[in-house]
Amino acid sequence: MYYHQIQLSPCISVRPSLMLKPRMVQTSGEVVKTERRRVDHCTRVPRNVNLEKLRNGYLFPEIGMRENEHLQKYPYAKLISLGIGDTTEPIPDIITSNMVEQAQALSTVKGYKGYGAEQGNKSLRKAIADVIYRGLKVKDTEIFVSDGAQCDISRLQLLLGSNVTMAVQDPSFPAYIDSGVIIGQAGELQEETGKYWNIEYMKCGPQNNFFPDLSTTARTDIIFFCSPNNPTGYAASRKQLEQLVEFARKNGSIIIYDSAYAAYISDDSPRSIFEIPGAREVAIEVSSFSKFAGFTGVRLGWTVVPEELCFANGFPVIKDFNRIVCTCFNGASNIAQAGGLACLSPEGSMAVRGVIDYYKENARIILDTFASLGLKAYGGKNAPYVWVHFPGSSSWDVFDEILEKTHISTVPGRGFGPGGEEYIRVSAFGHRESILEASMRLKNLFR
Amino acid sequence: MYYHQIQLSPCISVRPSLMLKPRMVQTSGEVVKTERRRVDHCTRVPRNVNLEKLRNGYLFPEIGMRENEHLQKYPYAKLISLGIGDTTEPIPDIITSNMVEQAQALSTVKGYKGYGAEQGNKSLRKAIADVIYRGLKVKDTEIFVSDGAQCDISRLQLLLGSNVTMAVQDPSFPAYIDSGVIIGQAGELQEETGKYWNIEYMKCGPQNNFFPDLSTTARTDIIFFCSPNNPTGYAASRKQLEQLVEFARKNGSIIIYDSAYAAYISDDSPRSIFEIPGAREVAIEVSSFSKFAGFTGVRLGWTVVPEELCFANGFPVIKDFNRIVCTCFNGASNIAQAGGLACLSPEGSMAVRGVIDYYKENARIILDTFASLGLKAYGGKNAPYVWVHFPGSSSWDVFDEILEKTHISTVPGRGFGPGGEEYIRVSAFGHRESILEASMRLKNLFR
Repeated sequence: MYYHQIQLSPCISVRPSLMLKPRMVQTSGEVVKTERRRVDHCTRVPRNVNLEKLRNGYLFPEIGMRENEHLQKYPYAKLISLGIGDTTEPIPDIITSNMVEQAQALSTVKGYKGYGAEQGNKSLRKAIADVIYRGLKVKDTEIFVSDGAQCDISRLQLLLGSNVTMAVQDPSFPAYIDSGVIIGQAGELQEETGKYWNIEYMKCGPQNNFFPDLSTTARTDIIFFCSPNNPTGYAASRKQLEQLVEFARKNGSIIIYDSAYAAYISDDSPRSIFEIPGAREVAIEVSSFSKFAGFTGVRLGWTVVPEELCFANGFPVIKDFNRIVCTCFNGASNIAQAGGLACLSPEGSMAVRGVIDYYKENARIILDTFASLGLKAYGGKNAPYVWVHFPGSSSWDVFDEILEKTHISTVPGRGFGPGGEEYIRVSAFGHRESILEASMRLKNLFR
Repeated sequence: MYYHQIQLSPCISVRPSLMLKPRMVQTSGEVVKTERRRVDHCTRVPRNVNLEKLRNGYLFPEIGMRENEHLQKYPYAKLISLGIGDTTEPIPDIITSNMVEQAQALSTVKGYKGYGAEQGNKSLRKAIADVIYRGLKVKDTEIFVSDGAQCDISRLQLLLGSNVTMAVQDPSFPAYIDSGVIIGQAGELQEETGKYWNIEYMKCGPQNNFFPDLSTTARTDIIFFCSPNNPTGYAASRKQLEQLVEFARKNGSIIIYDSAYAAYISDDSPRSIFEIPGAREVAIEVSSFSKFAGFTGVRLGWTVVPEELCFANGFPVIKDFNRIVCTCFNGASNIAQAGGLACLSPEGSMAVRGVIDYYKENARIILDTFASLGLKAYGGKNAPYVWVHFPGSSSWDVFDEILEKTHISTVPGRGFGPGGEEYIRVSAFGHRESILEASMRLKNLFR
């Protein structure tokens, strides 16, 4: 169901005079009647105009709903979900055992811990700086541990406020645009283009090697850039990121760089924007343990805000972000943080690497499958996503046909922006047997 | 350190022309020089005007800093923190063992779970509805599991946006006002009063039995109301809450009711706003496992949005809040949720109750201590906080004197708003021996 299709409640027809009649609340008998009749009282609080601008439901809950509808239609179908990019393989023991230890410690006088630092435990911040950003001069004090990248994207929007302009890759992860709409940056949605008036869409596809033509890109305050990209699976090259950083420096923009899939990079593409000289004055990096260590349900991520990054008035961005984190967040779960620390130990890193390689082998199988069918498929080498082109087709139609005929759920590219039309995203997360089974079903459908 | 005392970075003096000179980024040598010289590039992104309006640092990090400064001055002092309301007693085994089980399951093929529902696990939502709201007709689908009340307060502000007016109890938990300032509801801070122009401060003190005079309270869209109150420790009576609900219904306002301390109520004061007839059309309830089960570091809470609650145009608030939760949040940690479920089992509830009673005995000892010194102390009976009056004194002076002379940290009432001046908040969280030791030190200071 789309949220914009929601039935308005009966009270919209109630006359204000009636809504305000004190007798409605003065006699309890009346009140009970009120309750039984359900909504016959409306507040006078205006609905947030920004939320009115969000037209459709958030993509992934919607796909979940379509999967459920499909299962109601075919109760005996073995649905294979290659849709929502959700990890499927067990978390290595060495990591969960650290969480187990932390949970047990909470039942001891010595080991009990209450509130941690809002920014995260020192030990974890230091491990992220030392292991993930080895050699990049990222300080532990510049790292803010979060409950996940998506949550921090919305906190970054709170930080920046409604008075800034934003650019996104098209296609891109929907949370960038939706959080921008919610905070009031997006302007009106243009029905004909499916684009928000105030957002700069940077088209990325095979035609431009999945990197925007910056010579025709308008200057914006914020540039969301995700690499390896979700959904296209393409990892930007060093040269491309150097161009992006130069573009941001020239325009006085802030890059919000999403490196949630960096651990999947196989070639020499940068794993962090901070590998690029000059990035510390123009970039924030958002990242996550979700796809790195299978923490999608455990909830743990981080954001790096370099000390050098400042607003036009010279005020350090890190000071304001620290304030947002202290006021609107209260730290990630101490148990999840214990797990994150284990991921960054030498043994933990090895174990995590094994799981990542497993997903990458899945991606290879999916790539080969589509290639063998003569379909153009991208990504998959530096990311757990394969981006498949169906020239001339509507991505929702392709999604529906594949779901209907193979019981495989994917993601329609259109859900990632107008630039995703004609494409579907296929996730490489899944047990090997499901991937092989899916490969067989797809071959039968498209052969 | 106060954030408004921060040194602006050198780049504020850099001429825009210089900032934009391409050579700064074109030759890597220059860039290295740039990095070594630190900030000599400023973005052109305007600082969020709302954040400029937040004058002081967030209260609790500040108190932490003062404690640290004190320990540097007196390295051998045994600091007793009765300041930041942080739980200290171990979490009962029956609860952590459920978290241990969940963490271990994540290492098994059968037990691994990825993303959960953004709104929380069905079983936990149902348990909260059945146990916490027994008999109150709150549906599990109206419950949104969160990573804590403070985080949900900020998500509720995102939901409501900048175009609404708000009222708060004075004194009150700083996050209500600060999150309102960040989203743009507060207006300018008036130096002379210490109040934000656009916020209605509802003074609550002994003079009005800690309940605002509603006949002189201006109509606002939102009314934040916390009971049992932090910091005063006062739980509103049924009659008072009936007045509040009637007031909200008459004015078409939404009450955001914070019941994070409801488990500490000893008398027949309502534990939920939904005990009051007519509340479902005008109230949202925010609550937490933090003080209920010692989950301050584990991070788990919930928010109830009744289906009947609508905006002025009749649109159901629950639909928009669901959208916020799906876009800006990704669910609470599945391990924390397993712990929450255990808290609500019969055995878990018993165990949790034991810890709460322990803190309440602490509160009694603190109340008796101040009473024996002839000081007026409030709260403590229905809440883990004691609110002590020092007529004619500045609350920061009292805080400093107590810290300096007894090595006990409290919270200056002024930190909770202008109405907190002359008061300090003393937390009853702590090991019994610390509470007894603190009682002795306070008696020696004030006798």
